Amino acid sequence: MKTYKNPTKSIWPDLIQRPAINKEQLTQGVNTILNDVKQNGDKALIKYASLFDGVELSNIRVTELEIENAVKKVNQELKDAIALAYKNIATFHQAQKFQEEIIETSVGVKCWRKSVAIEKIGLYIPGGSAPLFSTILMLGIPAKIAGCKELVLCTPSNSKEEINPAILYTANLVGIDKIYKIGGAQAIAAMAYGTETIPQVYKIFGPGNQYVTRAKELIQQSGIAIDLPAGPSEVLIIADSTSNPVFVAADLLSQAEHGADSQVILLSDNEQIVNECLAQVEIQVKQLPKKEIALKALNNSKAIVLKSIAECVEFSNKYAPEHLIIASENANQFADTISNAGSVFLGNYSCESAGDYASGTNHTLPTNGFAKNYSGVSLDSFVKKITYQELNKEGLKSIGKAIEIMAEAEQLMAHKNAVTLRLKEINND
Amino acid sequence: MKTYKNPTKSIWPDLIQRPAINKEQLTQGVNTILNDVKQNGDKALIKYASLFDGVELSNIRVTELEIENAVKKVNQELKDAIALAYKNIATFHQAQKFQEEIIETSVGVKCWRKSVAIEKIGLYIPGGSAPLFSTILMLGIPAKIAGCKELVLCTPSNSKEEINPAILYTANLVGIDKIYKIGGAQAIAAMAYGTETIPQVYKIFGPGNQYVTRAKELIQQSGIAIDLPAGPSEVLIIADSTSNPVFVAADLLSQAEHGADSQVILLSDNEQIVNECLAQVEIQVKQLPKKEIALKALNNSKAIVLKSIAECVEFSNKYAPEHLIIASENANQFADTISNAGSVFLGNYSCESAGDYASGTNHTLPTNGFAKNYSGVSLDSFVKKITYQELNKEGLKSIGKAIEIMAEAEQLMAHKNAVTLRLKEINND
Repeated sequence: MKTYKNPTKSIWPDLIQRPAINKEQLTQGVNTILNDVKQNGDKALIKYASLFDGVELSNIRVTELEIENAVKKVNQELKDAIALAYKNIATFHQAQKFQEEIIETSVGVKCWRKSVAIEKIGLYIPGGSAPLFSTILMLGIPAKIAGCKELVLCTPSNSKEEINPAILYTANLVGIDKIYKIGGAQAIAAMAYGTETIPQVYKIFGPGNQYVTRAKELIQQSGIAIDLPAGPSEVLIIADSTSNPVFVAADLLSQAEHGADSQVILLSDNEQIVNECLAQVEIQVKQLPKKEIALKALNNSKAIVLKSIAECVEFSNKYAPEHLIIASENANQFADTISNAGSVFLGNYSCESAGDYASGTNHTLPTNGFAKNYSGVSLDSFVKKITYQELNKEGLKSIGKAIEIMAEAEQLMAHKNAVTLRLKEINND
Repeated sequence: MKTYKNPTKSIWPDLIQRPAINKEQLTQGVNTILNDVKQNGDKALIKYASLFDGVELSNIRVTELEIENAVKKVNQELKDAIALAYKNIATFHQAQKFQEEIIETSVGVKCWRKSVAIEKIGLYIPGGSAPLFSTILMLGIPAKIAGCKELVLCTPSNSKEEINPAILYTANLVGIDKIYKIGGAQAIAAMAYGTETIPQVYKIFGPGNQYVTRAKELIQQSGIAIDLPAGPSEVLIIADSTSNPVFVAADLLSQAEHGADSQVILLSDNEQIVNECLAQVEIQVKQLPKKEIALKALNNSKAIVLKSIAECVEFSNKYAPEHLIIASENANQFADTISNAGSVFLGNYSCESAGDYASGTNHTLPTNGFAKNYSGVSLDSFVKKITYQELNKEGLKSIGKAIEIMAEAEQLMAHKNAVTLRLKEINND
């Protein structure tokens, strides 16, 4: 990790920069796949499965038998762990449900909002070596609590047409029965446009590689909603004299192992603690199976010594990290000064992996500085809020005149007329 | 309006189609403007103001003197009307503020969310003949309630470098002091990238023509959030034997006058009511200053007779209208069956113009079928929700084992290690 001591604020803008991602070079290739699937449906999906996943699909949809077999393959220890995570995630997202009251803004004018589930939801789960079943919990549980009627899941199979049992077990557990062996940009296209086999959805969630990410951005322009714009995963840790360097190092590495492009930043008011943390990183990284990836990520990571913890928070708010760990016994006194972050972890025992799996908060969070203007996934992500208003005669009398005057000032005379004709009828009663 | 009697459900998909908008033809021209402003800042803005608005700007930012003069020019009657609308909009959006409680998902594991205002917000208000000051209320009031620190407003001036006094008065009233005489795609670019004069913002709100809309879509891809994807304004009215055809016709026309591309749909279980409404439209349209526009809109509008009001609601849910008026004395019994709509108006005295101006609900709503997957603008649109978690030693003991098992199953050993090292230290206490 590159170390900086009290950098002047003039260079902070450089320090908070993320590596630029060139999207445009992806656009043409991804558009070709999107259009192909739009026009040729399942035929295109089977072609790309053969081309990209090296599999000749006998069926696009996962069968009940395949699910049953997967359920048998997952050991009880993992099932129990998933059950505990399920309980905590459900508890936290259930608490995000609430009934807004009816507001009488003027006499006889009642206004309110109603939360209604988005009817059709699509989830994408990447393939590859690691089965990200935890993301199915993070997306499927709030979708079910919201009341989404149709849940579709796409994930690529391996060359033997197999999907990791933990993925099928978790999807089945949260109540997703429409699971398809399709990956990449073609999976996003299938859920966006629909095919003979895969239903079209209204909103698409889930992580993916640069092709999946670009496909989500492009289909968003044709009116399909997406969970979040994406970028590499990040953690920013603020450490002080009360931090435990062993823990801080472990948390830095648990972000670094995600990928060579992971962003890892350590801030402190205490140079000695920084040195101890970096020494611990040296020791711990050697034990990791993903050592090579972690070392690459650490190469473009930064450790920065600043004047005070308050200044560390100031820096963090400018960086707007996906994950922010305040590794201090006094974390609470800084919690309310956080203005830009996806999810915040307070104290020496709140490791990021707790939020990644089982504390109950959602792990689908804004990266790449998007925490400045986007929230992470929550129950809100799966509903629309419809507004209602009901005016009785008295209500229209109380605000009608104002509407007439404003409508006329905006030169919308038919808008005015809709009120005038009603007021006339009311006054003739 | 074209009339349909009991169309079979097989043709419903055609009936709910919106006219296709060809975005791609706009892309190149808009991209040129975006890049020009990104590179040349104010210089480019002044050039486009001359080119598109026919004005040689002496200053980009509206001066305090210009605002003072505008405040004097607005008559008291309009000021009082705006004050009433302000009160109702503030009352309804203030009620959307709420404090979520801390949830203890497992012993020693506390999780919660905090709403934090998006720091920098940009509003776009179109120019043209009609000054849309009501939209400043709809966007500026919730932004202020949310606590957004920096509010920027762009709106084009006329060739005499004047902005309609009602716009300056309303912007000043809601507390927007950074007002710039810039319109079109160049205004969106200025707020997205920042210039020497205009500050960069994190989220951009407001209506506009096809160039503004396309610019908003394009800058969204570089990480700037936007309020909503846009399309022509719409109303769908469900009428029955208890409707007042005079009122229904007035409401149809108040949508039709918005523009030739406005979408107007009338549904009923009662053919006679439909005929009476259409007859009233014929009479009322003659009186309108915007008669020509309204007639064009009515040409591509539809009146559809269906078997029952329940079937009308079923159709409406598939169409997902921006505005839905249930013009019936029994509107309430259908209110809860609405699953896709932006804003709903219940009963014969809840005209759309009430919601456009003064009932208190927001008039920035999802069009073009986006009510299936997007909410209208609300207080939520101006905040991010940051999640927090705090685990004490007991908390990590209660969920640590589950995290270790899940992390290992996802082959993320550093994630597991962050827990293992902490549990070891806890058990050594």
